[in-house]
Amino acid sequence: MKFNRVLENIKIYEAGKPIELVVREFGIAPDDVVKLASNENPIGTSPAVKQAIIENADKAHLYPDDSMFELKEALARKYRVNENNIIIGAGSDQVLEFLSRALLNENESVLMSGVTFAMYEIYAKQMGAKIYKTANYAHSYDEFMEAYTMYRPKLVYICTPNNPTGDATRKEDVLRLIEAIGKESVVVVDGAYMEYAAAKDAKYAITPKDLLGYENVIYLGTFSKAYGLGGMRVGYGIAQPELIDALYKMRPPFNISTLSLAAAIAACGDDAFVAESIALHQEQIQRYEAFAKANGFTYIESYTNFITYVFDETMDSTQIADALLKRGVIIRNLASYGMNAMRITVGTAKQNDVFFKHFSELLV
Amino acid sequence: MKFNRVLENIKIYEAGKPIELVVREFGIAPDDVVKLASNENPIGTSPAVKQAIIENADKAHLYPDDSMFELKEALARKYRVNENNIIIGAGSDQVLEFLSRALLNENESVLMSGVTFAMYEIYAKQMGAKIYKTANYAHSYDEFMEAYTMYRPKLVYICTPNNPTGDATRKEDVLRLIEAIGKESVVVVDGAYMEYAAAKDAKYAITPKDLLGYENVIYLGTFSKAYGLGGMRVGYGIAQPELIDALYKMRPPFNISTLSLAAAIAACGDDAFVAESIALHQEQIQRYEAFAKANGFTYIESYTNFITYVFDETMDSTQIADALLKRGVIIRNLASYGMNAMRITVGTAKQNDVFFKHFSELLV
Repeated sequence: MKFNRVLENIKIYEAGKPIELVVREFGIAPDDVVKLASNENPIGTSPAVKQAIIENADKAHLYPDDSMFELKEALARKYRVNENNIIIGAGSDQVLEFLSRALLNENESVLMSGVTFAMYEIYAKQMGAKIYKTANYAHSYDEFMEAYTMYRPKLVYICTPNNPTGDATRKEDVLRLIEAIGKESVVVVDGAYMEYAAAKDAKYAITPKDLLGYENVIYLGTFSKAYGLGGMRVGYGIAQPELIDALYKMRPPFNISTLSLAAAIAACGDDAFVAESIALHQEQIQRYEAFAKANGFTYIESYTNFITYVFDETMDSTQIADALLKRGVIIRNLASYGMNAMRITVGTAKQNDVFFKHFSELLV
Repeated sequence: MKFNRVLENIKIYEAGKPIELVVREFGIAPDDVVKLASNENPIGTSPAVKQAIIENADKAHLYPDDSMFELKEALARKYRVNENNIIIGAGSDQVLEFLSRALLNENESVLMSGVTFAMYEIYAKQMGAKIYKTANYAHSYDEFMEAYTMYRPKLVYICTPNNPTGDATRKEDVLRLIEAIGKESVVVVDGAYMEYAAAKDAKYAITPKDLLGYENVIYLGTFSKAYGLGGMRVGYGIAQPELIDALYKMRPPFNISTLSLAAAIAACGDDAFVAESIALHQEQIQRYEAFAKANGFTYIESYTNFITYVFDETMDSTQIADALLKRGVIIRNLASYGMNAMRITVGTAKQNDVFFKHFSELLV
C-alpha cells in the first residue's frame, strides 16, 4: 500500500500521561497521584454541567442537533456576534484542523512563534505545508513581520496567551500585527486561555468582536479550560461568514456528541464557575511564583492557568520531571520544545501542596 | 482569501431534521413528533451506559486516556484481535475520514455502489479524488470488477449491510471481491449495521477476524446502532497494524470525549441490550413488510435496523415525506439519492403505530 507522502513526515502528538498509567507503571495508589500536566480545571466539573450531563444521560442513543442552534445562540449572545460567525469544533483543535485543510497544501506555509501549541505544526504537516517559526516564544512584531515578508505564509498563528509558555501578547500588539499582514493570509488568534489573561490585565483582553472587522482573522476559544470541559471536546471559531462557510465544508456531521453539546450549553451560562476558577488560580499561582524565587530559578510571567518554570544549567527539566513522576506527580517537561523548562498546571491548594512537598525534597 | 480548490466541489452533508426543528416549524408538541429518520436505537440508552455516564458526570473537566487502553482491550477481546489492530474514531465516520486523508489525493479515485453511505463521497471530494459508482445499489461482483479494472481505485467501499437501502452482501461474495482486488487498493468493509444482518442470516455475518488475513482490508464497526450510542460518536476500524498506524497519523488527540469513552466501554460488554434491540427489531419489521404488501408497494429486503420502501410512478417519495413531516413523522426521503423511495427506522411498537396511522391516512 502506498500512503500519501505527507504521512512520512508526521509525528504523533504525545498526550500527557493519564493517571491510570502512572498507577500501573509505578504502583502508586490513585489517590496519591497528582496530575498537573494537562491544564485541566482543578476545581473539577461545574455543578451545572454535571446536572446537564445527568439529565441527558438517557439520550446517548440520539444524534445531537447538528445545527447546534442553542449553543451557537448562547455564544452569539455572549460575544455579541451573529450565529453565522460561529463554527463549533471538537475542541478548538478541530477548528485548527478545518483551517489547515481548507487553506494549506504543499505550496503553502504557516508562521508561528518559536515555542507554541504543538497542533499548529502537526496539522500543517498533515497538509504538507512548510513551517516557519520565529526565534522566540514571545510574539515579536519584528520577528513575525520579517518572516511574513520573506515567506508570505498562508496561515499566521498568534497564540495569546501562549501555550506552553504562559506569556501573552497585548491587544494593541496583536492588532498592529493583524494590520500589517496582507488579506491573502489568514491570522488565527488562539485565545484558549483568554479568560485568565483578561482577568489579570485588561491590556491583554481580546474578544472575538475586536477582530470581526478583519475578514481574514479568526478567533478561537474553548470550553476546555476556564469552563472546565477539557474531557468534552468543545471549542469554537468566530470570524466573518465567508471564512466560517469554508471551514464548514471540512466539518464532519455530528462533530460534537449529544452530551458534549448539552454540557457546553450549560457551561456557557455558568459565569460564576469561571469566576471561581480564576479566583482560585490567582490565589494559588502566587505560591508558585514565591516557590521559584525562594529556590533560585525563574518562571515566565503567566497569563494562563499554568506556570512555566525555566531552569539554568544547574538543573535539568527531564531529570526533574522523571523524578516527580516516580513520586506520582505528573507535570509537563518542555525538553521536547527545546526548553530546559517545565509547565505546571496550577492546581487546588491541596494538589499544589503535594507538588511543593515533592519538588522541595528533590531540591535538597 | 483563496481556499484550497477542492472546496469548490463540496456539498455539505444534510443531517436528518432534529425533533426541535419540527416542533418549531410546524408547531407540533414534542411528544407528538416521531423521528424514524436517523436509525437511532428505538429502545433508547442502555441502563448500563446511562449508569456509566452518571458515574462519570463529574469527570467532564478531565481529558480521556488518549491511549483508549480499556476500550481497545474490550474490543480486542470481543473480536479476538490484538489492540494494535484497532483504531477508535468519533463514529466510524471519522475512520472513513482518516482513510480518505491517508490514501486519497487528486490523482486517485474511489469506487462504491450506486447508492450507499453519503460520507464516502464527501470525504473523497474533500481530497479531490475522483468518484466512481456502480449502476446499482447492490454490490455486484461483475459491476465492481468492471469498474475496478478500468479505474484502479485506491479505495473500494463495500457497505454491508448497505445504507440507505438495507440490503446486504453475502460473506462469500465479499471475500470473492476482496480476493480479486489488487493489494495496492484498500478495501473498506463497512459493517455499521452488521449486528442486524448477522442475527438475521449467518451467510451475511462478517467479523473483523474474517478479514485480518488481507493486509489491504479494513473492517469498520460502530457503537451508534445496535449498541445505542448514536449521540456519543464512537466507532472503530480493525485491520493489520501497517494500515492502522498510517491512520493514526491523521488522528487528532482526544478524538473521543471522556464520557463517550466511558459509555463505549460500558456498551461493549452489554450483549443483553444488543440482543434486546435485535429482538424488538425482528418483531417490528414484519409489520413494515406486511404494511407494504397490504398497500401495494415494494420494499428492499432489510438486513439493518431500518427498511426502505420503494414506490412506483403512482407515488412520490418527496410528497409523502413532506406530508408525513407536517404530521410530525420524520423519515428519510431518498430522492436526493436518485430513488423514489424512503428509508424508515424501525421504531418501537408505539412509534410504528404512529407511522402506520399517519401513512394510512395519506394513502386513502
